[in-house]
Amino acid sequence: MPSTYRAILIFFVTTLISASSLTLAQAPSHPLDALKSQEYWVVYDVLRDSGKMDPDTFYASVLLHEPAKGKVLAWRPGDAVFREAEIILLRKGIAIEALVDIPAHKLEFWKERKDIQAPVLEMEFHALEEVIKKDPRVIEALKKRGITDLTHVECFAGPFGYFALPELEGRRIFYGGCNDTHGEFLGWGRSIEGLNIEIDAVEKKVLKVIDDGPTPVPTASINFEEVESGPREGATPIGLSQPLGPAFKISNGEVNWQSWNFRFRLDPRIGAVINLARFNDGHQLRSVLYEGSLSELFVPYMDPAEGWATRVFIDTGEFYHGGVLKPLRENIDCPTTATYFGTLVPDEHGAPGIRPRVACMFESYSGDPSWRHFEKHELWGSPARTLVLRTAAVIGNYDYVLDWRFERDGSIHVAVGATGIIETKSVKAKDASATGGHGMPGSPDEFGHFVAENTIGVNHDHFFSYRLDVDVDGVNNSFMAGRLVKRALTKPASRKSIWVVEPFIAKTEKDAMIDIHLEKPAMWHFINPNTKGPLGYPTGYELMPGVTAASLLDPEDGPQKVGAFSAHQLWVTPYRQDERFAAGIYPTDSKGADDGLAIWSKANRPIENTDIVAWYTLGFHHAPRAEDWPVMPVMWHEFVLRPFDFFPKNPMLDLPSTP
Amino acid sequence: MPSTYRAILIFFVTTLISASSLTLAQAPSHPLDALKSQEYWVVYDVLRDSGKMDPDTFYASVLLHEPAKGKVLAWRPGDAVFREAEIILLRKGIAIEALVDIPAHKLEFWKERKDIQAPVLEMEFHALEEVIKKDPRVIEALKKRGITDLTHVECFAGPFGYFALPELEGRRIFYGGCNDTHGEFLGWGRSIEGLNIEIDAVEKKVLKVIDDGPTPVPTASINFEEVESGPREGATPIGLSQPLGPAFKISNGEVNWQSWNFRFRLDPRIGAVINLARFNDGHQLRSVLYEGSLSELFVPYMDPAEGWATRVFIDTGEFYHGGVLKPLRENIDCPTTATYFGTLVPDEHGAPGIRPRVACMFESYSGDPSWRHFEKHELWGSPARTLVLRTAAVIGNYDYVLDWRFERDGSIHVAVGATGIIETKSVKAKDASATGGHGMPGSPDEFGHFVAENTIGVNHDHFFSYRLDVDVDGVNNSFMAGRLVKRALTKPASRKSIWVVEPFIAKTEKDAMIDIHLEKPAMWHFINPNTKGPLGYPTGYELMPGVTAASLLDPEDGPQKVGAFSAHQLWVTPYRQDERFAAGIYPTDSKGADDGLAIWSKANRPIENTDIVAWYTLGFHHAPRAEDWPVMPVMWHEFVLRPFDFFPKNPMLDLPSTP
Repeated sequence: MPSTYRAILIFFVTTLISASSLTLAQAPSHPLDALKSQEYWVVYDVLRDSGKMDPDTFYASVLLHEPAKGKVLAWRPGDAVFREAEIILLRKGIAIEALVDIPAHKLEFWKERKDIQAPVLEMEFHALEEVIKKDPRVIEALKKRGITDLTHVECFAGPFGYFALPELEGRRIFYGGCNDTHGEFLGWGRSIEGLNIEIDAVEKKVLKVIDDGPTPVPTASINFEEVESGPREGATPIGLSQPLGPAFKISNGEVNWQSWNFRFRLDPRIGAVINLARFNDGHQLRSVLYEGSLSELFVPYMDPAEGWATRVFIDTGEFYHGGVLKPLRENIDCPTTATYFGTLVPDEHGAPGIRPRVACMFESYSGDPSWRHFEKHELWGSPARTLVLRTAAVIGNYDYVLDWRFERDGSIHVAVGATGIIETKSVKAKDASATGGHGMPGSPDEFGHFVAENTIGVNHDHFFSYRLDVDVDGVNNSFMAGRLVKRALTKPASRKSIWVVEPFIAKTEKDAMIDIHLEKPAMWHFINPNTKGPLGYPTGYELMPGVTAASLLDPEDGPQKVGAFSAHQLWVTPYRQDERFAAGIYPTDSKGADDGLAIWSKANRPIENTDIVAWYTLGFHHAPRAEDWPVMPVMWHEFVLRPFDFFPKNPMLDLPSTP
Repeated sequence: MPSTYRAILIFFVTTLISASSLTLAQAPSHPLDALKSQEYWVVYDVLRDSGKMDPDTFYASVLLHEPAKGKVLAWRPGDAVFREAEIILLRKGIAIEALVDIPAHKLEFWKERKDIQAPVLEMEFHALEEVIKKDPRVIEALKKRGITDLTHVECFAGPFGYFALPELEGRRIFYGGCNDTHGEFLGWGRSIEGLNIEIDAVEKKVLKVIDDGPTPVPTASINFEEVESGPREGATPIGLSQPLGPAFKISNGEVNWQSWNFRFRLDPRIGAVINLARFNDGHQLRSVLYEGSLSELFVPYMDPAEGWATRVFIDTGEFYHGGVLKPLRENIDCPTTATYFGTLVPDEHGAPGIRPRVACMFESYSGDPSWRHFEKHELWGSPARTLVLRTAAVIGNYDYVLDWRFERDGSIHVAVGATGIIETKSVKAKDASATGGHGMPGSPDEFGHFVAENTIGVNHDHFFSYRLDVDVDGVNNSFMAGRLVKRALTKPASRKSIWVVEPFIAKTEKDAMIDIHLEKPAMWHFINPNTKGPLGYPTGYELMPGVTAASLLDPEDGPQKVGAFSAHQLWVTPYRQDERFAAGIYPTDSKGADDGLAIWSKANRPIENTDIVAWYTLGFHHAPRAEDWPVMPVMWHEFVLRPFDFFPKNPMLDLPSTP
């Protein structure tokens, strides 16, 4: 780095506001704060002192139990902060639900649940790997493959994201396999194919070793930091500069930036949770979003082979032990000007561990205008800038960069950048040249695509459910579809057709289950029928879908029953305090019959002029390409919440004309 | 601006490469260069000396006549540069087509065309405004409305973007109306409604004044620079910093940046034209895109009223006299680090005029990663940066920010940012409170939406046709749809369904007319069947659609026949030198029966393993909202061309890990 550039960078860095202590303050200042360190310890003490714990009982999950919305909205600074934690424990395969009132140091609820499976504990992964690697059948199977040095063999077993087989009933059975990392720094791409292991996660016992016969482990180059001699020449340094520091302020957990006010917490299960997003219209703080967060993530693979058909991940609901968010790295994930935030996650004994730098906040400026008009030799306009709250969820191989982007026009862009490493299958064929192209039945790439020699990137989907508790100008809202409908004209002679907007107010949940069709376009409005703007329209926000996908799976397919939210791009439900996870609280080995968006919605509850919640499905099919290997370029998808008659005019007219 | 910030900015600016002379060099250095100043003068001299010109003959268009692709690809630096100009003249309402060989100073072609209409000349607008304002019937109609001071009344007449009425046959008839700018700095939003004028643009004579009765001109506040007292406080300065200057180089008109090489010209009709985009894979420059540009823009309005039904604009083909591109302003349209480019446009006498700063090029960095993976407590990755070539097309009220964004992963993102001022209709009703909401038949907002008092933003569409002459690794390519098809499974027991990719090679044009359906997803591949990558697949690029729209108009509707490209999101045609404009060369008063994408494609020509051209329709419906007034926030839409098995692996692994 040239010294001039470094000097400037240092200058920028020293002007940063340090706000990394936000989430780690000792006492909660607001009912929606993330659980504090001392609160985790209260939970621990209450459960210990209850006499119900024993050395075989482990913590699978400790989450803030969100208070009912009414209580939060009635709360004022200075009031007592009501705090509850919801806990999932795992004892010898049995899940236990508990609820602790933290200020009262009181165990409010305790229930053993034999009908569900707790999410996976990190300790289970480690323990099961040891068991697998010591099993004589596994050792024999590896030997058949010429692998006798097990030092660098990594084995993994995880649960099904759906109820697949009768033998799972009431048991905690995991399925897994192994990779050979010999010669590599990561084992992805080095699967020991055809070796499938069924294991009892409670008994810590391998039940079955299904060996479909050896397939050599690929040897194609995968160490992504080493495959090129780089760094490539020719790039001069580039950065964002904010000599006077960022323009956002954080006070008592509340972010204030350019008319936007909101809170956020970093939840171990669902990551960043935005709360109480309000926009100052110059006169008052007006409510837009009571809460917004990722709710679930459904990733089914599309290969019917043994060991692959069961690769269906309900990522946030199954694999969040240790926290779904992983650290961000400055200059790679966020610019130099970013401020970072840490969070706490409980370990298997309930003790909070610190996870520094799992979120960053920065103002982004990419050189674009926010509005402009040229006429009469003059140009009017102003440059755009954005406030980004970024986290990264890492679930094994995949990395998801998760953004909440606040814009000065009152819109919120929610973006997902998918990167990381695709899951691959080892095959005997070196490449596609013998079979002439993908998709041919019986060819090695029938269910995926060669991304390296002997390596198939397997087809799969990603479906994110975002839960958006919109409260436009208050709690009671309605969902209105603005349907664009073709109308035939008989006059004037110059035209035969136009389209008009036909508003449709959804009465019940079924009215608002929406699939996107280009030939039947509709705008999705969340309006407050009780608050009219100056032109006589209800104030509202529009949810604008981005590029997305619908699930192609059979509705009766096990995975699809659990990830049923992927059947529609939009759902609207009445607010319920306990309806937070689109695939249910316990997706592991789930039959999809008891909990989740598709189940709740069956009641077809009224949603008009009441407190409603929108659920947006952001999805994409992924048929891999060579360029996705050995690590994927970021692929972004997004959707937008934008004001629609919320303001009486463009709210950006008072922005400065310089960035 | 604080002095420290200013000092840093000045430092950045002085390190910029000045390349603004690019398009204005005296002699062309390449067959695809924009026409040079001296070339316009050769055209002028050749036509003058032909003896065919007279004082009534005006220049409506002078464009580079692109050489056949084969000639360009065979051309080498040092060879003679073949140059032709295609000219449209307008003489007393008659269009004349001409072709001039510039180096030979030779008139190659001259033809009077009575069957088509030339595009509008800027001088016509001025002349017709004078005629309208002097017409006694207009003066009387204005008087009836209380408008007697015509000093600040602006009148406008333009042609139909389609053949609307028999009386247009063989005549140059324009339709128009007036605005009252009294008290304002722009007349948009001040339409004098109900006053519709039919005018003979050749005779310069008002034919009809159709007065549907007065509607008061709205008085709501519209001076967007004055409606707020701003600038809003609280924003600290932000900018892009490149202390060592940008990393792109331009030499002999060729841009070189981070493995990308391409040329561009700024065309008066279609704006930026990208040529010969090639990617250096470390061994050789490999062809991706021979040419990419906007081809046409279709904007039909959705109000059947007199004077509104005929508002259908074929924007680039009708209104490009004077050049479709308008100036960019630094710090609003492009960051401080940008380099600007000018171009030349001919006036009505054929003389080239200079248009400075109509394009900018800059590297963008918004703090995002280009790829990343976290595992084993480590984070690998690199930050993203983008090369942006930006222009802005301004067609009356609308501003379109048009980007070509080159990425280091080999992808090209083509983006359209719509901003500027929506077209509004004056109505007697003050607002929607009497009729309770839009869409009700007979209500004042039946065909639009109140955006201010007495002001309706009228519903309309925008359809952009992008012409993408893909040449992946050579001229002969095929189009392959990778169809994702559900497959029922009988085993294993754990699954009932998956999807597989079924490749479909398009044989003829009809095979490749594609509409987007979420339930029938397909990947759009442009492959070179003659070049296999190392894994046995043909090398290729994928066109990934963004959010887009399909036209809802009746296929038999006049506007839809001309903007027929909007019927499908993708078309693929065989390369033809003369097939460049999706709505035909002459969309004005067109019947849509002779020229344009839908007409050419009727022949259903073979497109397999030959030189093919992709046409992507980027569209959106616009039902306005209050926030779109008095000037719209930028709304971005984009699509992506990305490598798919073009590289053997992720091409970004050698990027530095700092921005």
